[in-house]
Amino acid sequence: MTAVAKSEKAQIITQLRELFGERCALGQTIRDQHGKDVSFHPTCPPDAVVFAKSTQDVAAVVDICHASSVPVIPFGTGTSCEGGIGAISGGICIDLSQMNAILEVNTADFDCRVQAGVTRKQLNAELHGTGLHFPIDPGADASLGGMASTRASGTNAVRYGTMRDNVMSLQVVMSNGEIIETGGRARKSAAGYDLTRLFTGAEGTLGIITELTLRLHPLPEGVSAARCGFPSLQTAIDTVIQVIQTGIPIGRIEFLDELQVAACNRYSKLNLPEVPTLFFEFQGSPASLAEQVEMVEAIARDNGGSGYAWATTPEARSQLWQARHDVWWAALALRPGCQGIPTDACVPISMLGDAAVAARRDVLELGLTAPMCGHVGDGNFHLCIVVNPDDADEMTRAAELNARLMRRAIRLGGTCTGEHGIGYGKLDFLELERGPSMHAMVAIKKALDPRNIMNPGKVLRVTDRYDTFQ
Amino acid sequence: MTAVAKSEKAQIITQLRELFGERCALGQTIRDQHGKDVSFHPTCPPDAVVFAKSTQDVAAVVDICHASSVPVIPFGTGTSCEGGIGAISGGICIDLSQMNAILEVNTADFDCRVQAGVTRKQLNAELHGTGLHFPIDPGADASLGGMASTRASGTNAVRYGTMRDNVMSLQVVMSNGEIIETGGRARKSAAGYDLTRLFTGAEGTLGIITELTLRLHPLPEGVSAARCGFPSLQTAIDTVIQVIQTGIPIGRIEFLDELQVAACNRYSKLNLPEVPTLFFEFQGSPASLAEQVEMVEAIARDNGGSGYAWATTPEARSQLWQARHDVWWAALALRPGCQGIPTDACVPISMLGDAAVAARRDVLELGLTAPMCGHVGDGNFHLCIVVNPDDADEMTRAAELNARLMRRAIRLGGTCTGEHGIGYGKLDFLELERGPSMHAMVAIKKALDPRNIMNPGKVLRVTDRYDTFQ
Repeated sequence: MTAVAKSEKAQIITQLRELFGERCALGQTIRDQHGKDVSFHPTCPPDAVVFAKSTQDVAAVVDICHASSVPVIPFGTGTSCEGGIGAISGGICIDLSQMNAILEVNTADFDCRVQAGVTRKQLNAELHGTGLHFPIDPGADASLGGMASTRASGTNAVRYGTMRDNVMSLQVVMSNGEIIETGGRARKSAAGYDLTRLFTGAEGTLGIITELTLRLHPLPEGVSAARCGFPSLQTAIDTVIQVIQTGIPIGRIEFLDELQVAACNRYSKLNLPEVPTLFFEFQGSPASLAEQVEMVEAIARDNGGSGYAWATTPEARSQLWQARHDVWWAALALRPGCQGIPTDACVPISMLGDAAVAARRDVLELGLTAPMCGHVGDGNFHLCIVVNPDDADEMTRAAELNARLMRRAIRLGGTCTGEHGIGYGKLDFLELERGPSMHAMVAIKKALDPRNIMNPGKVLRVTDRYDTFQ
Repeated sequence: MTAVAKSEKAQIITQLRELFGERCALGQTIRDQHGKDVSFHPTCPPDAVVFAKSTQDVAAVVDICHASSVPVIPFGTGTSCEGGIGAISGGICIDLSQMNAILEVNTADFDCRVQAGVTRKQLNAELHGTGLHFPIDPGADASLGGMASTRASGTNAVRYGTMRDNVMSLQVVMSNGEIIETGGRARKSAAGYDLTRLFTGAEGTLGIITELTLRLHPLPEGVSAARCGFPSLQTAIDTVIQVIQTGIPIGRIEFLDELQVAACNRYSKLNLPEVPTLFFEFQGSPASLAEQVEMVEAIARDNGGSGYAWATTPEARSQLWQARHDVWWAALALRPGCQGIPTDACVPISMLGDAAVAARRDVLELGLTAPMCGHVGDGNFHLCIVVNPDDADEMTRAAELNARLMRRAIRLGGTCTGEHGIGYGKLDFLELERGPSMHAMVAIKKALDPRNIMNPGKVLRVTDRYDTFQ
């Protein structure tokens, strides 16, 4: 990115104020709010925040910024985890939260069209009564544009996949202000390069997602849930592998380690045995549910599982899953006043036992507090490293723990991020993970955003080091 | 692409002969075999065919061709449908069929690693006894590298998705001979741009796929099948929509129109009622199978379906599905000595009735013979236009029919190709379908293959018209 002169920036802001009036905000509070996500990364406020109401608004801002090579950063709900929205080189933040119209719901085709600022809960509320739902659930009530941008997933991914699998098409504002549509409404297509998947997970560095066509799913006929304790982490993981290998169409399968269970007992006033614990959700017809619950119980028993409890009514299910719902707050309550750093390693399932055991050894060695939970059906597990941000030494040890987890995941054939994304917190680890394929990523970035104005400094470093294809 | 002088080409061939000896073939027969797929597109033989045995072989060929800007065309089994492998600007064909090693099968992780020349039947034979299978089935026993390159799917896609959903990572030789790996073995990842999906469906125009990590699936506990006739195309389609909306985890759901059923009766010596007919395959536990068969029967009956027949043993299932298995040959047998042109429109399911009815009207109007079958659970339907290739007028009418189907599919929010790809047969229709997003595709092509040597002339036209991002 060319350095932008102060006077030029002032001129751009004048232009934006003329166009957008009060919808171009300059106040420090608003700028600070837009310069920080939920992570521990420091606040990097943008120079101004434009509240867009339409794709044309977004295109107008990008057009103006393109002319002077000023950075543009999209903002949904600010719930990203790796510094994805900080204005690390300054620039204009485009807040998409007012682009929150649900444009179409096609019940016969199981798809819908939304503006990027619609949140997943808003969409599911709108779908109430249609027999359909949008199942991707990263925890936060994130915007769907943000979820697509970070390739989000969560507890439901073992059954429904991630945003990668559920975005059918995107409307994107490109770096020169041009508006494109990446796909259509057919359920499959062999027509040209898969731009939909390219922009999904690009974290706003190739263009800004303004509308999405999403795949919807029929609500399961019935749902039931179960919980079971295990003598060790490995026996719990073995259970997961066997459940999946048997082809049981499990809805969710979540793991909490004994420290996390203890934290939940204390926080949520529960009385669970403080052992490695699996939480299951089953979906299907009544006959299939009964069958699944029984099959999983048999597998759990074979692996030494005990205290298998199951529930079918919504209230009982919710109570059974209480501990899982509260993990984050329960972990933070272990050390009041402290902050959480979530790790996000994801490995092939067969490696999960090794990776998790080694992670716990690291935690002990580094003298940290870090309970573990995981979307274990996908091999994805999080440690919530509970830290005092003012303790520099502890912060260094926390960074070392995170680094060890990521290096190990990569060594085991996995990834440094299962669902949080790269932001600017994991640049080095993406390079470690992807090696020479970074050349292709940088070449694509340069081709689609030659001025490096689209959320610059995120996902990858644009350097000449990679100009190898000529 | 720079025009390549004859002398330079001769020099390259000399270099390749020195490196590969007899594995660099120059004979007309072999070159002709490698210049044609199963489509009606004319043969375009390459200047030479190199039989690669390793990724390093592929990289060596690309490296040599890169230096002189000579085209490189990958070849698997030659079963593509849109002229994907013709050497329309000459160049070197790399035959990958000898790269047929299955490198790893990880049963606990449900994944495997294969060389690009392994075919899907070979892989499934190797998986015998593991409880796993690779379900994507485009009909032909295609190479997995080719299937990834064309984003293939087929009858199983309604349950298992397409190649897009089942490729976890690719090893790719880039246009400069560099070898990259696009992903890892984690079941999900939010790490950087989704290069895996970018190369899947790129038809060799961005790089040559040399190895694949593929997702495997547990074999269903049980399988049963059913068949049912309907009073009209629309009632058959309504049945499909309702079956899917009910959330029945259908394995396959295939449609044959009355002309296709008649053709199958004659060819396969069957005695089916010559009405629009659906074929179903169910997968699951015994309890779930019985439930599915009953639910589908009820839905079919509500839509006027009759003659609902079902079967559970492999032999009976196979017999029940006989007509579906033989559609292509049955269609061709309608006019002995003629050739088939398969169309490949795919639309949102709710539009399928309209699209299919209009297609049949077109067939009548244009005076053609073209029975219809379809992977209707995905909205994808094929007409097999049976033509005499020596009848220029008939060929023109066939092209007109195909064009009408594609234009209509695009108008209805669908795609000109559900699973066959663009090759050089559908360049115009991709442009019509994707509009301004072609700019991004061409920019990516130019970034990753600046010399335009990777299967040039396929998928898109590289012109300066699209240099808009500066």
